[in-house]
Amino acid sequence: MKRQEPMKIKYISEFGLIKRVNNKVPALKNAVLGIGDDCAVINYTKNKYLLSTMDMLIEGVHFDLRKFGAFKVGRKALAVSLSDIAAMGGIPKYCLISLGVPEDMPVKVVDDFYAGFLKLAKEYGVELVGGDTNRSDKLICDVCVIGEVKKENLVLRSEAKIGDIIFITGCLGGSIYGKHLDFTPRLMEAKILTKNFRINSMIDISDGLAGDLKRILEESKVGAVIAQEKIPLSKYALNCDSALYDGEDYELLFTASEKEARKVVENFKKFSGTRLTPIGKIMPKKFGFRVIEKDTNRVVPVEKKGFEHF
Amino acid sequence: MKRQEPMKIKYISEFGLIKRVNNKVPALKNAVLGIGDDCAVINYTKNKYLLSTMDMLIEGVHFDLRKFGAFKVGRKALAVSLSDIAAMGGIPKYCLISLGVPEDMPVKVVDDFYAGFLKLAKEYGVELVGGDTNRSDKLICDVCVIGEVKKENLVLRSEAKIGDIIFITGCLGGSIYGKHLDFTPRLMEAKILTKNFRINSMIDISDGLAGDLKRILEESKVGAVIAQEKIPLSKYALNCDSALYDGEDYELLFTASEKEARKVVENFKKFSGTRLTPIGKIMPKKFGFRVIEKDTNRVVPVEKKGFEHF
Repeated sequence: MKRQEPMKIKYISEFGLIKRVNNKVPALKNAVLGIGDDCAVINYTKNKYLLSTMDMLIEGVHFDLRKFGAFKVGRKALAVSLSDIAAMGGIPKYCLISLGVPEDMPVKVVDDFYAGFLKLAKEYGVELVGGDTNRSDKLICDVCVIGEVKKENLVLRSEAKIGDIIFITGCLGGSIYGKHLDFTPRLMEAKILTKNFRINSMIDISDGLAGDLKRILEESKVGAVIAQEKIPLSKYALNCDSALYDGEDYELLFTASEKEARKVVENFKKFSGTRLTPIGKIMPKKFGFRVIEKDTNRVVPVEKKGFEHF
Repeated sequence: MKRQEPMKIKYISEFGLIKRVNNKVPALKNAVLGIGDDCAVINYTKNKYLLSTMDMLIEGVHFDLRKFGAFKVGRKALAVSLSDIAAMGGIPKYCLISLGVPEDMPVKVVDDFYAGFLKLAKEYGVELVGGDTNRSDKLICDVCVIGEVKKENLVLRSEAKIGDIIFITGCLGGSIYGKHLDFTPRLMEAKILTKNFRINSMIDISDGLAGDLKRILEESKVGAVIAQEKIPLSKYALNCDSALYDGEDYELLFTASEKEARKVVENFKKFSGTRLTPIGKIMPKKFGFRVIEKDTNRVVPVEKKGFEHF
């Protein structure tokens, strides 16, 4: 008799695991929005929601401490969560950090980590209010950011409409060669967008444009077409595919109606020098998710190649 | 010339590291209370504060997955944070979890982990609203719980008064032999105490009675004397010192004025069957922290032996 090997995590993929957990989580009673967007949304005051998001970075998985230096790792530990708050149209207010530290680590490394973390916190007016410190084999940091958003400014992944123009901020691709360590969380851009324009859906690009746009499409039950030649490539991008599939760009991806999109194109530059680019259009669900290839002009289905942990 | 070895984490102790970080954190602007109590306290509604706490558990440091089973680890991952909410007099509402999972881990282990986690969440009406999933070498879980507390029910570590009677719930010691995995977070007891009595200070005993009472004394700038023979020993406690220095009891330690303490002793039992025991008294700071030894009746200074990670 052959003993069957147990089903392992690596066989079901990261999204498979998340879906598996989601299916077991009971329906929400008090929370407005749970798992499935950049932040959880909780009732707060009459005019505002509370936002909450958590991101873990693990030495050897997410960063090489010797290569990057602890200052940049500390900065990034906070920046990734700030990017999530931005993607919902929110303002970050408080943060907590759980840290796992090897006992043989020089104190200076931890000092540098916190220097990077607290410098970014100060820049964005985020207060460090708590956390937990533990012994571990490798440096582990997990950051929770609590923010707020005016109810009328809340932007979800699930409200993209057919005909919407798809925009991105900045340039994409090759973030692994540096930008992932010192990207600017797009809080200012998100604030300008949600305050002055009607944005239908938004997400931050952490796992690659293709993977994250796919999340908007799934949540909004729509399709999309994007033009590869429209996507501004970062100077570190190896090729056009980098912009689609490389992770950790931490730019904003958002959609707005055609009429609103025109206003965005005309007026956003009055508020910010950050590059905004229309790259495609929301289509009916049955259209699927396709890309117009740069050289061939062929319209082809987008492969699923965004970053997954397993 | 001899090259000096860099100062390492293990030489400055866990509390040393926390103090070092605290000294760099800027003064709070919007938060009511930051690092230094069981939870962070944030302004919320007119009558309530928001509470937030984070606790990380790491395989090999905090638990042995094979020995304990993932169900109990999942339960504990949430229970330790619920205990922190209880210690402030609060009600837990929402939680987020960051998980690091080895890719070779059987899916069933993660299922069991979440089963234990979600069962406890359901018992206390806590909604899982978000989190993060990552690949890691060992199982790592970090839980953030967001709760609320009526402003008049908030209890801090820093408000113990000279003459206060010191109480504990339950029995102490030997938690490592089992209780640390399935303790009951003292939310109900905390609710009864804060609703019906005037509690001056409170903390949950996670690092040993001696270590955690010492935190109340430091924050409140007072001293204390406790009678070792008064402390109810768990059946797993090896000896009297277990009750003072063993970690992970997750019972409540609180203080109330002598007058209020009499009311507590008379009336608490009408609300709950949980054992409550007066074990000592808050003294002036110059008295220090002393214990009346069980056998000798000598009054001796309490050694500093609470659990530290480094």
